[in-house]
Formats: sequence, structure tokens, C-alpha cells
Amino acid sequence: MDCVFCKIIAGEIPCSKVYEDQNLLAFMDINPLAEFHTLVIPKKHIEFLWDCPSEISSALGEALPKISRAVQKASASDGCNVLNNNASAAGQVVPHIHFHIIPRFENDGVFTEWPAKQLPVEKVQQAADKIKVLIDS
Amino acid sequence: MDCVFCKIIAGEIPCSKVYEDQNLLAFMDINPLAEFHTLVIPKKHIEFLWDCPSEISSALGEALPKISRAVQKASASDGCNVLNNNASAAGQVVPHIHFHIIPRFENDGVFTEWPAKQLPVEKVQQAADKIKVLIDS
Repeated sequence: MDCVFCKIIAGEIPCSKVYEDQNLLAFMDINPLAEFHTLVIPKKHIEFLWDCPSEISSALGEALPKISRAVQKASASDGCNVLNNNASAAGQVVPHIHFHIIPRFENDGVFTEWPAKQLPVEKVQQAADKIKVLIDS
Repeated sequence: MDCVFCKIIAGEIPCSKVYEDQNLLAFMDINPLAEFHTLVIPKKHIEFLWDCPSEISSALGEALPKISRAVQKASASDGCNVLNNNASAAGQVVPHIHFHIIPRFENDGVFTEWPAKQLPVEKVQQAADKIKVLIDS
């Protein structure tokens, strides 16, 4: 398996570990957007969140508050982004699910884009109906 | 409670709902970054992820794959960002935990910033040690 995160999990590549349990590993991003930028990953190799089994995704969900709380306190930041990118179009580089915990400070300029738009109400409702059917099926 | 998401949960403000269970609600963002941009929120009013009780955060974690899978299929997108902003410094506007599921297409220009940097190895290890102590305590 030529996955850098799998190699970290296997101990073949070193990392600065902050947390580990049966399902998860958390360690420092080596190309951080900010000091204390932390990654939380499942030990199992899964590329995309939408393919993540519920027992692993619930473990991820359970761990994120306690790890982000510690990152928040350690960094004395004003806030944080918890971000999971899926596929290259969304900025994913390593093909193994990871949640970034990125400490943020007022006006730090790390992320400044939020290109929100208005869509017609009917279009939004049609989108919702389409998603709902897929969740229920 | 003057929280727009609590009003949506209470049915006082309408939304385009895609999913609901005992703990969670998912609905369309009315100021989307892309068509099919969906929000997933806990029904309980909690401002920041780091304050989220584990039974709710594990429910969030469990639901994110199935909702993002449906958003992905419905939008026929190339990928998605799953993003939770905590505090105004991180871009949080509504003071109630929410995960954005943002469909992404190659070169859509929605997010283009990733200002990664290099930090000295010792500094990264010190950060890890500081976080680890806080998680363990």
C-alpha cells in the first residue's frame, strides 16, 4: 500500500503523534497552515468519507471534540476549522480520510474565501428532494 | 434563544430538510457555495465542536458519510469539503455547530487557498507534546 498515512500508522514513517486509539491516529501536519495544525485519521485505509463505515466515522466524530479542544487550548487560538477534503477537486492530496484541525486567529488570512451565492428557492428545494431520496434509499 | 438554527429545529423558520433523526438535522444552506451545499447540525444548541458531548459528536460522525454520499451522488460532483468552522476567527457565523458539505468540481474556484508552511521539526514536536498532555488530562 503506497499510502503515506498507512506508512505512518505502520510506523514506517515517523510522526508527531498526539492521540491514538483502536480506530484512530492523530498527529501533526508536516505542512501546516498554522502552528498546532493536527490531522485525525482512521487506521483503516479508506479514501473518501462517503465510503467510511459508520463504526469508524462515529469514532472519528467522537474524537474530534476532545482533540480540537486540546488543539484549541494548546494553541491559545481564537477558533478552528475542522476540515475533511474528499477527492482532488476538493483539495485532497493524501488518498486516506483525514480531518484537519486548523487553529485560527482573527485576521490571520489563512482562509479568506467564502464565495456564497443566492440560488432560486425552487432549485434549492429540488436539490433537497434529490438528496433526501438518496439518503432514504 | 435567538439562534436561527434553533428556530429551524423548532419549525419557526422553514428549511429544505434532507435528513432528520433524534440528534441531528440536515438541510440546504440558503447561502450556498455550490448547488447541493448541505448543513448538518445537532438539534441541541451547542456553539463549538470542542464543547460537543461525545454521544452527539459520534452521531454527527456517523451521519456524515451517508449524507455526504447522497450529496455527492445528487450533485454528480467530483468531490466535497466537509467543513466545521468554530468561532468568528474561523468563519463561523451562526453560533450553533454545523458541518458544511460542499460539493466540489475540478477548478470550480470555490476554495483556492492552502497557505501551507514549513515549521522547524522541534517546534512541531513541542506542539504535539503540548496537545498530547491536554488530551490525556
